[in-house]
Amino acid sequence: MKAIEIQGSFGLENLKQVERDEPAVKPGQVKLRMKAVSLNYRDLLMVQGLYDPRQPLPLIPCSDGVGEVVEVGEGVSRVAVGDRVCPIFAQKWISGEPTHEKLRSTLGGPYDGTLTESMVLSEEGLVKVPDHLSDAEAATLPCAAVTAWSALVTLGQVKAGDTVLVQGTGGVSIFALQFAKLLGARVLVTSSSDEKLERVQAMGADEVINYRTEPKWGKVARERTGRVGVDHIIEVGGAGTLQQSLRAIRIGGHISLIGVLSGGVSDVNILPLVMGQVKVQGLVVGAREGFEAMNRAIDTNQMKPVVDKVFSFDQAQEAFQHLEAGKHFGKVCIEIPSKA
Amino acid sequence: MKAIEIQGSFGLENLKQVERDEPAVKPGQVKLRMKAVSLNYRDLLMVQGLYDPRQPLPLIPCSDGVGEVVEVGEGVSRVAVGDRVCPIFAQKWISGEPTHEKLRSTLGGPYDGTLTESMVLSEEGLVKVPDHLSDAEAATLPCAAVTAWSALVTLGQVKAGDTVLVQGTGGVSIFALQFAKLLGARVLVTSSSDEKLERVQAMGADEVINYRTEPKWGKVARERTGRVGVDHIIEVGGAGTLQQSLRAIRIGGHISLIGVLSGGVSDVNILPLVMGQVKVQGLVVGAREGFEAMNRAIDTNQMKPVVDKVFSFDQAQEAFQHLEAGKHFGKVCIEIPSKA
Amino acid sequence: MKAIEIQGSFGLENLKQVERDEPAVKPGQVKLRMKAVSLNYRDLLMVQGLYDPRQPLPLIPCSDGVGEVVEVGEGVSRVAVGDRVCPIFAQKWISGEPTHEKLRSTLGGPYDGTLTESMVLSEEGLVKVPDHLSDAEAATLPCAAVTAWSALVTLGQVKAGDTVLVQGTGGVSIFALQFAKLLGARVLVTSSSDEKLERVQAMGADEVINYRTEPKWGKVARERTGRVGVDHIIEVGGAGTLQQSLRAIRIGGHISLIGVLSGGVSDVNILPLVMGQVKVQGLVVGAREGFEAMNRAIDTNQMKPVVDKVFSFDQAQEAFQHLEAGKHFGKVCIEIPSKA
Amino acid sequence: MKAIEIQGSFGLENLKQVERDEPAVKPGQVKLRMKAVSLNYRDLLMVQGLYDPRQPLPLIPCSDGVGEVVEVGEGVSRVAVGDRVCPIFAQKWISGEPTHEKLRSTLGGPYDGTLTESMVLSEEGLVKVPDHLSDAEAATLPCAAVTAWSALVTLGQVKAGDTVLVQGTGGVSIFALQFAKLLGARVLVTSSSDEKLERVQAMGADEVINYRTEPKWGKVARERTGRVGVDHIIEVGGAGTLQQSLRAIRIGGHISLIGVLSGGVSDVNILPLVMGQVKVQGLVVGAREGFEAMNRAIDTNQMKPVVDKVFSFDQAQEAFQHLEAGKHFGKVCIEIPSKA
Repeated sequence: MKAIEIQGSFGLENLKQVERDEPAVKPGQVKLRMKAVSLNYRDLLMVQGLYDPRQPLPLIPCSDGVGEVVEVGEGVSRVAVGDRVCPIFAQKWISGEPTHEKLRSTLGGPYDGTLTESMVLSEEGLVKVPDHLSDAEAATLPCAAVTAWSALVTLGQVKAGDTVLVQGTGGVSIFALQFAKLLGARVLVTSSSDEKLERVQAMGADEVINYRTEPKWGKVARERTGRVGVDHIIEVGGAGTLQQSLRAIRIGGHISLIGVLSGGVSDVNILPLVMGQVKVQGLVVGAREGFEAMNRAIDTNQMKPVVDKVFSFDQAQEAFQHLEAGKHFGKVCIEIPSKA
Repeated sequence: MKAIEIQGSFGLENLKQVERDEPAVKPGQVKLRMKAVSLNYRDLLMVQGLYDPRQPLPLIPCSDGVGEVVEVGEGVSRVAVGDRVCPIFAQKWISGEPTHEKLRSTLGGPYDGTLTESMVLSEEGLVKVPDHLSDAEAATLPCAAVTAWSALVTLGQVKAGDTVLVQGTGGVSIFALQFAKLLGARVLVTSSSDEKLERVQAMGADEVINYRTEPKWGKVARERTGRVGVDHIIEVGGAGTLQQSLRAIRIGGHISLIGVLSGGVSDVNILPLVMGQVKVQGLVVGAREGFEAMNRAIDTNQMKPVVDKVFSFDQAQEAFQHLEAGKHFGKVCIEIPSKA
Repeated sequence: MKAIEIQGSFGLENLKQVERDEPAVKPGQVKLRMKAVSLNYRDLLMVQGLYDPRQPLPLIPCSDGVGEVVEVGEGVSRVAVGDRVCPIFAQKWISGEPTHEKLRSTLGGPYDGTLTESMVLSEEGLVKVPDHLSDAEAATLPCAAVTAWSALVTLGQVKAGDTVLVQGTGGVSIFALQFAKLLGARVLVTSSSDEKLERVQAMGADEVINYRTEPKWGKVARERTGRVGVDHIIEVGGAGTLQQSLRAIRIGGHISLIGVLSGGVSDVNILPLVMGQVKVQGLVVGAREGFEAMNRAIDTNQMKPVVDKVFSFDQAQEAFQHLEAGKHFGKVCIEIPSKA
Repeated sequence: MKAIEIQGSFGLENLKQVERDEPAVKPGQVKLRMKAVSLNYRDLLMVQGLYDPRQPLPLIPCSDGVGEVVEVGEGVSRVAVGDRVCPIFAQKWISGEPTHEKLRSTLGGPYDGTLTESMVLSEEGLVKVPDHLSDAEAATLPCAAVTAWSALVTLGQVKAGDTVLVQGTGGVSIFALQFAKLLGARVLVTSSSDEKLERVQAMGADEVINYRTEPKWGKVARERTGRVGVDHIIEVGGAGTLQQSLRAIRIGGHISLIGVLSGGVSDVNILPLVMGQVKVQGLVVGAREGFEAMNRAIDTNQMKPVVDKVFSFDQAQEAFQHLEAGKHFGKVCIEIPSKA
């Protein structure tokens, strides 16, 4: 089978297409013919050696993808040949709370990832995907969509009429906008690009704030809620944005802390957090049961993920460069051709 | 001021229009000029003497209505003259769990109700209503809508993609259908009338079942969920329907038990409840904080309550008879004219 | 290996000791040398053919027991040879909500049970037990203790200062008393035996009610809470007791519905359930994650299960007869001797 | 009546005893003869002008105290003359989530506080206290105890067997230790004083760590949990300790952020918070309903608050100095003599 590996040392230039042996299927396992992959910022950091420099190489990158079941091992009952499924990000996180062991079973490092023609995985580590999604659309679900779902639903319990502030227009943020609207919430989106803000308005965002022209966007957001503050914030910026988030959030509000975008080291005045009885919830994707619940929501509402651009398997480097450039709106995907 | 009283003894024929003194406003209180009232099945039972035969008379019936603030007492800060507000059903249930004391403060018995030109209430017992609603629409909120909201949101925590089964097309059920759709859920509705089922489909119901032609509707509902069962049931029928609900519900599912429709004495096999780890949650309207949250949801989504028919203040008896006849779809309302 | 089977047809007289082949260990599996077993009412019903008459025979009965790991298959990492572990009741219910599939994987029917010298199970279906427990004590945990834990902690979220009413002195009830005291709750226990009530008082029960001398014990319990009602009821009686429970429970209270003791067909007035916003939660044991959490609580507090009597492996019938007679207080156990 | 005021400008030296007119009782209000007061760190900061420099003076400081009801206004039903009650910290926070309005109604600033012979308050802003407590003990409850209760119970949902790490031996921390033990949890306490650590062990602390000799106490705490990490941390140090807390906490754990002790400006690496799916919950005392639940727990378990030293009303300055010196263990109280 063909696969893309990070070879020798980290760096986009070390992404190489290789030929590997087809993996064998043991009892309880399933073999997938991969159809499409989507890229996350984590995948880029991983290729660059910035996510986990101790990760042994070679490694097949990427955690998100979709494939077709082409072979099932002895005793497999959850899926059948022909099913279209996504591997879950943390292969051992089926349900319940995360643990160290569950969180160490992630694809695209330390486990080999999805940027390959074939994968063999435990039947437990798969979920079926809604029929109305294209392969590229389905490939976007495992990390970005599940993270947004965990933030708003599993952990955040957002309800109709709540106000949700979504930072930016990256993968998680666009899903958060879509899910928040599905749930009947009011949504504010921030971005530095008026063009992107127009696009989120077209998708249903109730209010937008350009944080370049409004650097004190936290105060602006608060004013847009009658000075009460927003109920929930999808915080992807980290150190650079948390202070404004603490201005925007209502007393008793909920901040989902997701981002590794701005480095992670922070100088934040945490006093408003105490005095406002604010909850800051770190989160890292989610369990398979949440993924399955999310798929029911996507299916019921015939929701479509936003795909920015689809690259071919031979253009994997270009796909990563496109992500790195940061001009995308929605997910960057790679399609894997059927073997002739 | 004019009001409608149950006079002398119970019975629709004893609903009489009377002249009472205008009530005085004490510190912390607010005077409302009532604009519209809506009827609940509880109000009908109360007038008939079937809800609480020990209720002293005369009593102004009805718990639901909307009025305009025309005077505020000393120290009032939550509302101002000119605000359009609904009285809350249990005047002392502001937030938190219900208590005996909170539940004894309900309008339309033991307290005088809303079918009157003027009411004086504590400022704590009021909520402002969304601007886009007509008076008749706003008058429907306090019991029927809040009950549906408590069932699905406060206690039920329904999320997008869940399947909600709604029994019938009464006031609570229609609101439950609307809220469930707002929340992104999939909704099944049962009714004995194909015409009503067509109407709920036009409102967004995903599936309908005529329980007259399908008396084993619980089994049918289960089949419509791939034999998994529905996540949540709005159970308004009581004894007559709980057994079918226990067939329809999924393992671990949630039944909101609301109805006093079919009398309340039951002969139910509770074994499936144990073996399926089902939760049955009795519920009785809800707190002011839930009402306020619901209004944000209604406002954000510009949702409109379904009003079946609006009667004039002089037609109060006819309004109750219309409710009693059971042919309505949505809420039965009474408008109260401005004093000349 | 030796095992006890229900042979030919149901009935205590058909419990027969047999010799079976030692089971082989596959990848991911673990072999246990069983040390002790405890009996549940479900096991008695199963042997009598009253629990599931369609269960194929022969069947090794009993779901609860403890064993020592004597062999581990390829890839096993959760346990090691020498560990003392309990099999979990529903072998596939690791965490999260129950499903049909999870609940069909129970020991003692449909799977062979614990009344045997050797078992081979998935490493996922085991939990380590606290060191301070004897084998007989450890054997009592999987059903009775986990059920009480799920009722009070996982689903009931009982907190210090809550009032818990425990019906009777059976296995689940005694554990519920012990856990409720661990959690800092106030506990009322009902029984028909003054002698048993003295024993529960010695164990820490704050109040006791003899339901033979006080058939309206629901009213008595309510009076003992200043007429507020109890917060939580461990309901094991079913049809015969639910009506009194509805008198005892406070507004907004929680009833854990566990019992199959009194048959399951019920004639209950459910109106108080609606009017009091009462939650009735059916429940069926619980997941492995709850079992593990419970073991931490037992360990931290050095809690000891109450063992009524320990029978030898040759006395299995007598053990079941002892349970059937209903004179026990705490759990009835069977020890399995080490092979010579 | 006599009272202690902050007069003219902030500073301990400006605490002056004054004579004020006895306050009058309006409808719905209650007059208390104060019996005892307890000091919180917030009170010290307030007197020093460090908590809210814009607070107008004079102000009667202190939020915590207990008094006897000596007069009730028209319509009062929650308490009666002779009842011993505590004022609640935020007078308008009865139940539900906090809001800006609820949190602005706190005693000891902006409202006059408890260091006075007489107070008049709304009947809604009071709770009855357990009989077994002395006046000084009862006076400790409103802030320190309710804060610990909110952290562990209302928001933290700590259960038996969980591991709770408590920082230091201040007022909130000692209550947290006591409540955690009531709940059946395992408790680790940190302190810089071996003598204090001995005292907490005598009170039931399972493990202690001297953070002076073990500055990397987060790692030590993690090791003491088999490298899993603790479930819950009572974080009172703020900036100076949060980093170690993030080392001590388990994946998915809960940090209650309470402290304003170390200033509030922080330089914290928040990446472990994201990667470990940690929840950081700011909190600010709690609602009356939590206070009432806590009192039931204290009563049921006959728990006694730890009083370090009781000063007389004439020694108010000395009491604050004693708190400022930081040598206390438990609460610093002031008794108010009965008027002759």
